[in-house]
Amino acid sequence: MTRDLTGEMEGHGAYDQHSLAQHSAGSFGMPLLERAIGEVAPLVRDDRAVTVADLGAAGGRNELDPMGAAIAGLRSGGVSAPVLVVHTDIPTNDFTTLFETIENSPNTYLHQPEVYAFAAGRSFYERIFPASSVTFGWSAVAVHWLSRVPQPIPDHVYCAFATGAARDAFVRESAADWDAFLGARAAELRDEGQVVVVGGAATDDGASGAEALMDALNDALHDAVATGRITEREYAGMTVPTWNRTLAEFTAPFAAGGPAAEAGLELLEHSIALLPDQYLPQFRASGDASAFADSVSAFVRAFTEPSLIETLDRPADERAAIADSVYGDVRTRLAAAPDSFETTWRVALLRIRRTVRRGPGPT
Amino acid sequence: MTRDLTGEMEGHGAYDQHSLAQHSAGSFGMPLLERAIGEVAPLVRDDRAVTVADLGAAGGRNELDPMGAAIAGLRSGGVSAPVLVVHTDIPTNDFTTLFETIENSPNTYLHQPEVYAFAAGRSFYERIFPASSVTFGWSAVAVHWLSRVPQPIPDHVYCAFATGAARDAFVRESAADWDAFLGARAAELRDEGQVVVVGGAATDDGASGAEALMDALNDALHDAVATGRITEREYAGMTVPTWNRTLAEFTAPFAAGGPAAEAGLELLEHSIALLPDQYLPQFRASGDASAFADSVSAFVRAFTEPSLIETLDRPADERAAIADSVYGDVRTRLAAAPDSFETTWRVALLRIRRTVRRGPGPT
Repeated sequence: MTRDLTGEMEGHGAYDQHSLAQHSAGSFGMPLLERAIGEVAPLVRDDRAVTVADLGAAGGRNELDPMGAAIAGLRSGGVSAPVLVVHTDIPTNDFTTLFETIENSPNTYLHQPEVYAFAAGRSFYERIFPASSVTFGWSAVAVHWLSRVPQPIPDHVYCAFATGAARDAFVRESAADWDAFLGARAAELRDEGQVVVVGGAATDDGASGAEALMDALNDALHDAVATGRITEREYAGMTVPTWNRTLAEFTAPFAAGGPAAEAGLELLEHSIALLPDQYLPQFRASGDASAFADSVSAFVRAFTEPSLIETLDRPADERAAIADSVYGDVRTRLAAAPDSFETTWRVALLRIRRTVRRGPGPT
Repeated sequence: MTRDLTGEMEGHGAYDQHSLAQHSAGSFGMPLLERAIGEVAPLVRDDRAVTVADLGAAGGRNELDPMGAAIAGLRSGGVSAPVLVVHTDIPTNDFTTLFETIENSPNTYLHQPEVYAFAAGRSFYERIFPASSVTFGWSAVAVHWLSRVPQPIPDHVYCAFATGAARDAFVRESAADWDAFLGARAAELRDEGQVVVVGGAATDDGASGAEALMDALNDALHDAVATGRITEREYAGMTVPTWNRTLAEFTAPFAAGGPAAEAGLELLEHSIALLPDQYLPQFRASGDASAFADSVSAFVRAFTEPSLIETLDRPADERAAIADSVYGDVRTRLAAAPDSFETTWRVALLRIRRTVRRGPGPT
């Protein structure tokens, strides 16, 4: 649930190669995508190109299936117009991997006729598209990445462990970012256009389901301070810039008088789901703790190294050595007791519609 | 004149930092751009977004001024619709640098209202946009990069030195690629839409104006073979995949019955210009041969290292050491006799219009 919004992602497709959980989480949103596409297809009444936005695309591997399904759904809904698929992410995203994935993957949606792929290198907390120009939007496992770290979390790197003033700051930043996301989409969606959000979430108690895993990472970083590999000051600056919202936090702006409702958005569906651990079943079948630890430590590394290690003011080779050491330590902890690190990410599923604008809208 | 179309560009903005000649060459096209924009602005009669294509964007630094001028020209021509600027290049291009340049440069066109930036990671020898969807296109110092090396050039790495069968193969590949470029644009341009091409060119005798410089590079590679730093076989596989077309080669497809004419394109303007050496004047003023050699060797390295050195089947550190050695040798040759390496690139300036399609076209 894991995308870096404030620094570069781990390069050369590492994120894509270790994003099984993100892929599975996205699949929870497919029924909502199909319902949304079924409802927006009739909006398209001429041959002008239809824009589909993929908001927070990362390396693209997890985006091929939903985009392919969206296009197929538009076609079966009678849309013959060209479809423009626009993958967005922050400017530092690895767009080379994204384009190579789209062009070269066996399951690319580009095999469908009259489909054109583009990218936008801009945060989805800002406006990316012209007003009323997007027919359907999709954002999977991306909106938990905040636009910035509001303040460090004492003695931890992960939002679920924030308390007191730090927790309050994350709650405020998360609310402001979510309002910004929704405000931008309210402007960009055409009348009755829809966006489906699969959001990294927390249950009402604030738990994201990854506490044990993230504690292991935090313990490894503490040990790195103790052994002098990183300084206390470096550790104090380390925060994964995410916030897993509760369903109440996701839905609040849609209440009557709330900012999303005022901006012209209505929430058609909302629910929360638990994503079963993606790696433990194989361990339990094989008993191979080493393979489990390899996979899960690579998964954690792919989404946390950019914000924790790559931001250190040190030469690249020192950063690489620190990362090898820290995630090696995480790996050792995982291998010693796989069942202690069961991870059940929470996923919020939201289907959102733009209401009809007052006055003569775009046709 | 220098963009890599078959491998990754030298990363981290190196191309952008050493592309003074490309920037200056592009500036030759600005009057054509202004004339084209003046003619296409009246085509835009409603508030639907207008697409401007920047074909072969590389890192984006040289694209900000022409795109800014195109947008300003549309606005002063009465266009109030949103403008979508789509920067295209091959998938391996450094799109991160491109987006960071667009978002963060002081002279970015994004300061203008209702402008939205996108990228497409696809070769311009293929279709990138839906039919009839592009109002204006711009391609500066990019179409001399061929889609592939048709065959190696014996005893040289640079197209101007090809003879016999190798030369014939380059001429054929260049013609096929140029036809593919024009055919794709003929489909994509709206009726009466225009594209301006600033193309790396050769005078009728086949000279690109960079012969001395590219000979220095070839000599350095020969020496690298002689000293055993690279193998004879590695050298034999090295080719910069470019072809600098003569004006006759550029204009041939527009003749009556030619493929561009048949596809619906007409050539409004064509000329050829010489780009004065960008580095010698400063050397002649300062006498600083070392600074001259630094700049010019970095320029050559930025556009040739990807196709010559980065394609070697060797570990990255060996490739880096080879490149340091070869371009160091080039630098030494340049420093010894700056005036011997005067480089006057040729640039073709073309303004092309899509004719009105038969039958009811898109409005």
